[in-house]
Amino acid sequence: MKSLTEHLWFETKERLEFVNITAQVADAVRRSGVREGLVLVNAMHISASVFINDDERGLHEDFRRFLEKLAPHEPVSGYRHNDTGEDNADAHIKRQVFGRETVVAITAGKLDFGPWEQIFYGEFDGKRRKRVLVKVIGE
Amino acid sequence: MKSLTEHLWFETKERLEFVNITAQVADAVRRSGVREGLVLVNAMHISASVFINDDERGLHEDFRRFLEKLAPHEPVSGYRHNDTGEDNADAHIKRQVFGRETVVAITAGKLDFGPWEQIFYGEFDGKRRKRVLVKVIGE
Amino acid sequence: MKSLTEHLWFETKERLEFVNITAQVADAVRRSGVREGLVLVNAMHISASVFINDDERGLHEDFRRFLEKLAPHEPVSGYRHNDTGEDNADAHIKRQVFGRETVVAITAGKLDFGPWEQIFYGEFDGKRRKRVLVKVIGE
Repeated sequence: MKSLTEHLWFETKERLEFVNITAQVADAVRRSGVREGLVLVNAMHISASVFINDDERGLHEDFRRFLEKLAPHEPVSGYRHNDTGEDNADAHIKRQVFGRETVVAITAGKLDFGPWEQIFYGEFDGKRRKRVLVKVIGE
Repeated sequence: MKSLTEHLWFETKERLEFVNITAQVADAVRRSGVREGLVLVNAMHISASVFINDDERGLHEDFRRFLEKLAPHEPVSGYRHNDTGEDNADAHIKRQVFGRETVVAITAGKLDFGPWEQIFYGEFDGKRRKRVLVKVIGE
Repeated sequence: MKSLTEHLWFETKERLEFVNITAQVADAVRRSGVREGLVLVNAMHISASVFINDDERGLHEDFRRFLEKLAPHEPVSGYRHNDTGEDNADAHIKRQVFGRETVVAITAGKLDFGPWEQIFYGEFDGKRRKRVLVKVIGE
């Protein structure tokens, strides 16, 4: 069995931002030498997500509105978590909805993807350094 | 390490439909010869889900109502993604809520399931040919 | 390839409850002897979740309120699944939002976690015995 462990670092300009990380994950898979296996890609912070969807600006705006309606950032005082001095309870909830991680198949040395699948880092509490873990296992 | 890669094809009659694919996944696991390992089952399209829940008609109706209330198909003009000429922004959002994939343990050559677990393909933008990937790895 | 299969049992006092299971999963990883690999942790029941987030009481109260607003337990008659004699349709929906499972990387024999990541069993229809599956694979 082969394996590879890698960290991707992010520091977004916006509080909520979606970053396409497909090329970086594909590159890690290539360097791992794994031909058949799985790659796990997960946020290492609990106010961020990794997910797969379309790289389309309008859709990302729809995601933003959807999540903001579901778990609005304001009023900050509306969340008990924020009584601790934090202001990111909404970000923890948004991450629960969009999920922590994705697992992607590796076939013949490549990400085994459908036509429009792209991997995103979903940041819900940005403007500071945060990490994503890429873990490849297989043969 | 052994592995097996397989595609399941779907063309649903309804725009939103849930299809039980447990038997097909179990069959792929059997044919893989893997006794201990994992099977990843994921939608290859970004307006569909794979998830595990109960095979009960009333519950599926509850799922449908829940998702439709959360991200209604109409009005189509309510989504920026649909400015591109698409009408399926709601399907992308529904898929985010229900997730892209599931990973199931294989123990003693079988899906290691609780009493009511069934695997479903969740179609949110149907009536056309779409695929699910089944990837088995283990020994 | 090495593997380990383990079940964790729960019987919560409340209908909705979050239980930190990080230490038990870390212990299973240690006993597996796996240095590089993956661990799958999943609810074996379809009205419960396994997810990763912060161990903070206020946040858990926010999660509870969020899920209860999204899919209220009452009125029980509001769900078609409950026509079967069940009263837990809301629990099936809550589990769909929070997800069934998590997959965590194992690096150098340990859970490869960010600073605040903790694994939780999310019970949405408690007060009875239910199980979580821990499956470790790797080398």
